[in-house]
Amino acid sequence: MNPQTLQSFNARTGEPHGNALAASTMAELDAVVNAAADASPSWASSSGGDRATLLRALADSLEAEREALVALADTETALGPVRLNGELDRTCFQLRRFATLAGEGAAFRLVDDPAVAGGPPAGHPDMQRQWVPLGPVAMFAASNFPFAFSVLGGDTASALAAGCPVVVKAHPGHPLLSQQTYTIIQAVLARLKLPAGLVGMVQGAGVHIGVALIRHPRIAAGAFTGSTRGGLALLAEAQARAVPIPFYGELGAINPVVVTPAALGANTEALADTLASSITLGCGQFCTNPGLIVLPAHPDADRLVTALKSALASQQPHAMLTAGMRQAFAKGTARQLGHGARALVNDGADASVAPMPFLAEVDAARLVAEPELREEVFGPSSLLVRTRSLDEIEAVLRSVQGSLTVTLLGVDADTSDNRRLVRAATAIAGRVLFKGVPTGVAVTAAQQHGGPWPASTAPMTTSVGDAALERFVRPVCLQDAPAWLKERHGQPC
Amino acid sequence: MNPQTLQSFNARTGEPHGNALAASTMAELDAVVNAAADASPSWASSSGGDRATLLRALADSLEAEREALVALADTETALGPVRLNGELDRTCFQLRRFATLAGEGAAFRLVDDPAVAGGPPAGHPDMQRQWVPLGPVAMFAASNFPFAFSVLGGDTASALAAGCPVVVKAHPGHPLLSQQTYTIIQAVLARLKLPAGLVGMVQGAGVHIGVALIRHPRIAAGAFTGSTRGGLALLAEAQARAVPIPFYGELGAINPVVVTPAALGANTEALADTLASSITLGCGQFCTNPGLIVLPAHPDADRLVTALKSALASQQPHAMLTAGMRQAFAKGTARQLGHGARALVNDGADASVAPMPFLAEVDAARLVAEPELREEVFGPSSLLVRTRSLDEIEAVLRSVQGSLTVTLLGVDADTSDNRRLVRAATAIAGRVLFKGVPTGVAVTAAQQHGGPWPASTAPMTTSVGDAALERFVRPVCLQDAPAWLKERHGQPC
Repeated sequence: MNPQTLQSFNARTGEPHGNALAASTMAELDAVVNAAADASPSWASSSGGDRATLLRALADSLEAEREALVALADTETALGPVRLNGELDRTCFQLRRFATLAGEGAAFRLVDDPAVAGGPPAGHPDMQRQWVPLGPVAMFAASNFPFAFSVLGGDTASALAAGCPVVVKAHPGHPLLSQQTYTIIQAVLARLKLPAGLVGMVQGAGVHIGVALIRHPRIAAGAFTGSTRGGLALLAEAQARAVPIPFYGELGAINPVVVTPAALGANTEALADTLASSITLGCGQFCTNPGLIVLPAHPDADRLVTALKSALASQQPHAMLTAGMRQAFAKGTARQLGHGARALVNDGADASVAPMPFLAEVDAARLVAEPELREEVFGPSSLLVRTRSLDEIEAVLRSVQGSLTVTLLGVDADTSDNRRLVRAATAIAGRVLFKGVPTGVAVTAAQQHGGPWPASTAPMTTSVGDAALERFVRPVCLQDAPAWLKERHGQPC
Repeated sequence: MNPQTLQSFNARTGEPHGNALAASTMAELDAVVNAAADASPSWASSSGGDRATLLRALADSLEAEREALVALADTETALGPVRLNGELDRTCFQLRRFATLAGEGAAFRLVDDPAVAGGPPAGHPDMQRQWVPLGPVAMFAASNFPFAFSVLGGDTASALAAGCPVVVKAHPGHPLLSQQTYTIIQAVLARLKLPAGLVGMVQGAGVHIGVALIRHPRIAAGAFTGSTRGGLALLAEAQARAVPIPFYGELGAINPVVVTPAALGANTEALADTLASSITLGCGQFCTNPGLIVLPAHPDADRLVTALKSALASQQPHAMLTAGMRQAFAKGTARQLGHGARALVNDGADASVAPMPFLAEVDAARLVAEPELREEVFGPSSLLVRTRSLDEIEAVLRSVQGSLTVTLLGVDADTSDNRRLVRAATAIAGRVLFKGVPTGVAVTAAQQHGGPWPASTAPMTTSVGDAALERFVRPVCLQDAPAWLKERHGQPC
């Protein structure tokens, strides 16, 4: 492929869709980042109301173009109109939620600490702890959420609410949709008389454009959703800069689901159906896909396996997002089979564009011994792990090291065993579920979507939920600030 | 020096003080970290009241041993009893402040987000966002605060309050004081029937022991106060681990003080006295020492320089903490003179153990052009920068890049020039002062002691003030948590 162009493909047929687009040149990237940086001071000092107005206008414009956007997204991703309409709803919900937060002054959180008379350590001057926006954020769009983690996704919404301009590196999996979304943004910015540079975008099929973006000296932070390999490469670039910058990478996870005997019994078949749906939802292309199901030695566990095999066999996933992801899925399932996993559904021979779901099983000791079995397989796949004791379950979770989620089913009673499970789960996850399945990440005040390494590069932060805004501000203490500055109540000047 | 031993020195005479101590072996380090990690689960689930009891008991025991500790610290550091008694007061104040915060449940902050009926995006399950402690913290003690940033300093207090065990790497500049403090801690732990491993300590003169500590797989975070070189080396180790961990390094700064004409006039001589005291306090061995004084082109600026020269000449600093630091001070002042700074006080010939204060001046353009002029000179030193315009002041601050503090004097009026100064200052500092001098860091709710790179490795965090606790916890969302877990109201189980 010509690195100077970028081709959209029909995800169902693999055929080129429309004409090739021009990839961004280095000069264009420099101009886009400079425009963002130049827009930074005025946006940093903007009121919460101004930010809310922009975010709401963006949501309204997205909705106004719903039909065309969803059709284009469906062609480029094969995710289907039901899912894509839902994702567009979620994207608008996120934009409006950050509008509400911005309007309420969430970016101007203030710790007001009036002077205390007397010498130290108890006495101190008048102090105010507040936030300043970091500056232009490089946002790397994801393949699997063409709306919600893309050009106008949660990273863009939260950065704008925080007072930061955004430069999006569009995902080459849906270039025309990205372009169309960008056009909508520019129209909104022009109508609101805001600088065009407030939201910039670069496109390119290779890695060089993303690397150039994170290296740019005027970029102040990076936000990324994608593969471990891509995320770690960009993290290394962010850390190797003359001035290192925060890099919020959400790299994926295998999301263990621990089934205890208490969760089985009469619920066994219903649980199998729920798990099968979660494994195959969106062709399994979720970072919260349940990639590991931890089973106890229990007669009902065998019933669950039988029911899960049958439930998965009746699922018909759609095509994957790109041909490269389909190949990676085949490679991942082959890797598991090559390291001792026994196939239960799909023996690896399936080569259809829309892949058959994959289910295999392995003993706990083997899983703990073989790191390859713990690598994420992105797609409709899960690995059953047979355990014989609580010690083994703990060893399995420890070996996973870091995950976005852990699901614990059947721990309703306050027992020492259940406490051990909760400790083992919270030690490796950002979100611990006690019902349901990990797919479906609510956009709420309490959400935490970052988990310990290697699930995230910044496990103390989240890319989903209200706290996503906090990634893009830095605390500053104003000591003995003059009256005019204090009257801004935390809003940077 | 034998790397297996560690020698205390009298800081005033340079003579060995007492017998050599045995340096920690690698096996000892491993045992200490393992003991801390083994103590981690029970301390993570401890109540705020338990944590408060420990922190208060530590403060009480420090105070009970005040006389002996201050005498030993004075021998090892030459900081003098007035400063050291004040520092011990501050250290006890910090311990008690984190006791109060722990008792009030500051480590159990909870975002309670009850279920909302209906489908996504608005509907969502019951969610609680709370904190889990990270686990054992490697704490690297500083040379210049033998109490407040050492074995029982703010890092230890905030980590214990957060629910994390601590392994201290003692500073070789005061090994006997560290040992004595550690003995006090162990007596308190034994009396409270808490695990001895909750606070561990390793000692060693070389870098290998600190490197081994940050590399240890059971260490979960690092906290460091010290040199840029040492901090960056440890940061690289923390990032290169199989599982990278947060590393909170406070590396130093040059702390620009911007004097505007409005701050001069009748106040000129008083300001000179204040600045001279700040430059020489503690022999200038503070990370908040005003290393850069930015002066306008104004007749009163020359009056300030004259007064400052005279005020500095009358100051008599004491010996520096170590012979190595005295050598580094001489090298630093020579570097400034070698890069075009003109000496005003101390032409570099002074070689006394207690150094003469150093003051030099340079033009703004030169300072911006020569990075060597912007390197911190640790000790009683400051560099005057002559500026001719607001543009030049902004260029000077931009060239500094990151600092713990910036002081802006004389910006009481709300003018566009003053807004520009505030923006330029907040862009590079963690704390912006509008009165007084940057030395003296209050331990308060609103404090922010971390500044942008290269002042800190983690500019979003602070090592001083209430928010220091947040460095050692990680958010976890509990989704549909069972009643017994919710009843803990954010306290890990």
